[in-house]
Amino acid sequence: MYQAVSQSFFGVDVGGTTVKLGLFDQDGHLLEKWEIPTDTGDRGSHILPDIAASVKTRITGTGEVAGVGIGVPGPVDQAGTVFRAVNLGWGVFNISEALGELLGGIPVFAGNDANVAALGEMWQGGGAGYRNIVLVTLGTGVGGGIIRDGKILTGARGAAGEIGHTYVRDGETEVCNCGKKGCLEQYTSATGIARLARRKLTGTGRPSSLLNQNISAKAVFDAVKEKDELAMEVAAEFGEILGKALAATANVVNPEAFVIGGGVSKAGNILFDYIVPYYNETVFHACRDVAFELAILGNDAGIYGAAKLALDNRAAEYGKLGS
Amino acid sequence: MYQAVSQSFFGVDVGGTTVKLGLFDQDGHLLEKWEIPTDTGDRGSHILPDIAASVKTRITGTGEVAGVGIGVPGPVDQAGTVFRAVNLGWGVFNISEALGELLGGIPVFAGNDANVAALGEMWQGGGAGYRNIVLVTLGTGVGGGIIRDGKILTGARGAAGEIGHTYVRDGETEVCNCGKKGCLEQYTSATGIARLARRKLTGTGRPSSLLNQNISAKAVFDAVKEKDELAMEVAAEFGEILGKALAATANVVNPEAFVIGGGVSKAGNILFDYIVPYYNETVFHACRDVAFELAILGNDAGIYGAAKLALDNRAAEYGKLGS
Repeated sequence: MYQAVSQSFFGVDVGGTTVKLGLFDQDGHLLEKWEIPTDTGDRGSHILPDIAASVKTRITGTGEVAGVGIGVPGPVDQAGTVFRAVNLGWGVFNISEALGELLGGIPVFAGNDANVAALGEMWQGGGAGYRNIVLVTLGTGVGGGIIRDGKILTGARGAAGEIGHTYVRDGETEVCNCGKKGCLEQYTSATGIARLARRKLTGTGRPSSLLNQNISAKAVFDAVKEKDELAMEVAAEFGEILGKALAATANVVNPEAFVIGGGVSKAGNILFDYIVPYYNETVFHACRDVAFELAILGNDAGIYGAAKLALDNRAAEYGKLGS
Repeated sequence: MYQAVSQSFFGVDVGGTTVKLGLFDQDGHLLEKWEIPTDTGDRGSHILPDIAASVKTRITGTGEVAGVGIGVPGPVDQAGTVFRAVNLGWGVFNISEALGELLGGIPVFAGNDANVAALGEMWQGGGAGYRNIVLVTLGTGVGGGIIRDGKILTGARGAAGEIGHTYVRDGETEVCNCGKKGCLEQYTSATGIARLARRKLTGTGRPSSLLNQNISAKAVFDAVKEKDELAMEVAAEFGEILGKALAATANVVNPEAFVIGGGVSKAGNILFDYIVPYYNETVFHACRDVAFELAILGNDAGIYGAAKLALDNRAAEYGKLGS
């Protein structure tokens, strides 16, 4: 029989410039959050020792640390093998084993950062109440994470949900960060939306409130709310590309809900006015009955999801051992 | 402790004109297969009684019938709820309960036919040795089934894997069976390939061996093997559309292998010469390392997969109860 004791979990979200950490109780309450810089020197070899040292400062001795979850900016399989994380300088290794050892044997569970964020949003964010969601993060890039039956859909090599690099348009001349051309990210990320707007403005002589300012995704959607015609055309172009891509995604995994996060999601529900018509127009009829929600955890989605990953894995272990 | 006894499983594949049935032993050997007509009269109300009667004729009394699996041409969720099967006249009901009752309490497990076929191909077909596959069936239509970690990816409403109705082309004038325009199925099914060829031939005055015969997908790929230029252009058009769609699918679920089945797959490995270059050109780099295989179970994939569904579910129950 498993004996309930006071337990805590850590959620860790490794980014290219900072590592976010959160301490959670066994009921999923965030007790404290903080961050440390990401030291990408020496091929990222200081990152895990820095994380371990920081986690240890919060281990008080009362109660038990039941597990640590960690989200990594790169593909991670279910066994915790990282398949390179370019921004951190990391190659291929098992992060669960490596960090677990630094923490004196505390169980560590790892996932891709976008997938882990999706788990967080399903747990206590915009996807709460659903068990099958796709989180789409529209930020500097476009990330995706898929949750099915309450668990991360990892894929064979931890690369499931990478819809930001799905090919959506012929004839693109600029190159995406991934090295290809015509990726979803090039039109629907914050930078992509600004680019669509610049293309529509350049040399056309058309009037728009966007002409008088620094063009950003925020400026575009602010202008849409003021009924700026050119901005509304940009939003429609964005909505068509994203709506069709989400329809294609739904035909593959048939989620209950799409949760839209990242900086662009701050525009609010007006996004859905532009996405949903194209989604409904192109999706298979059996996948039409889907909810569209806004993410609400912001930058904390990663630490929430990482903690949930640890919590679920430990609960599964208890389930196997006991009762 | 679970006591091993001689056990048998039935795999049932319900089609619009015939129901295929297979009797398997507990080691997965197909002992016997047969079929009965599908009686779609009276809103399909005779289909399950007919299946139950046919199954009962094979219950010999020696050994135990451990389970029945059944594949249905429509969305089915994990609990066995069918969400309409238009070709059979079926509405919404729980098929596991309904058929289980007709069989005097034998456990019944149900899935969508394409998903179940994918499970069969993974088990003893072209996907053997993999645990994460996407089966794409290029027949009269285009079906898809996804297996992740050895299990069917069902989706929220049983509609996962419906890639045949993913929107792939603007400006289509003809309507797909699903009621929309521009679906993958319209260009990559057997009928779709023939249509691409007819469009290329009509009124162009171009020479081709296809001019002298009934145009079919088989005729097109036979002509490709003879280096018919027009046929090779059709194959390239087919390959570009399918290769890009499979790349988009891989970005979502990151499989180890694609398994290609259906009548078109009889063309053999030459298909991959046309699909794979477009796949590699557009897929996210982390998903590039994928295998392309031909399905090998043909029309038996459904009964194999249905039996495997029953076998896995019973094994999971024993696992929970015993050891």
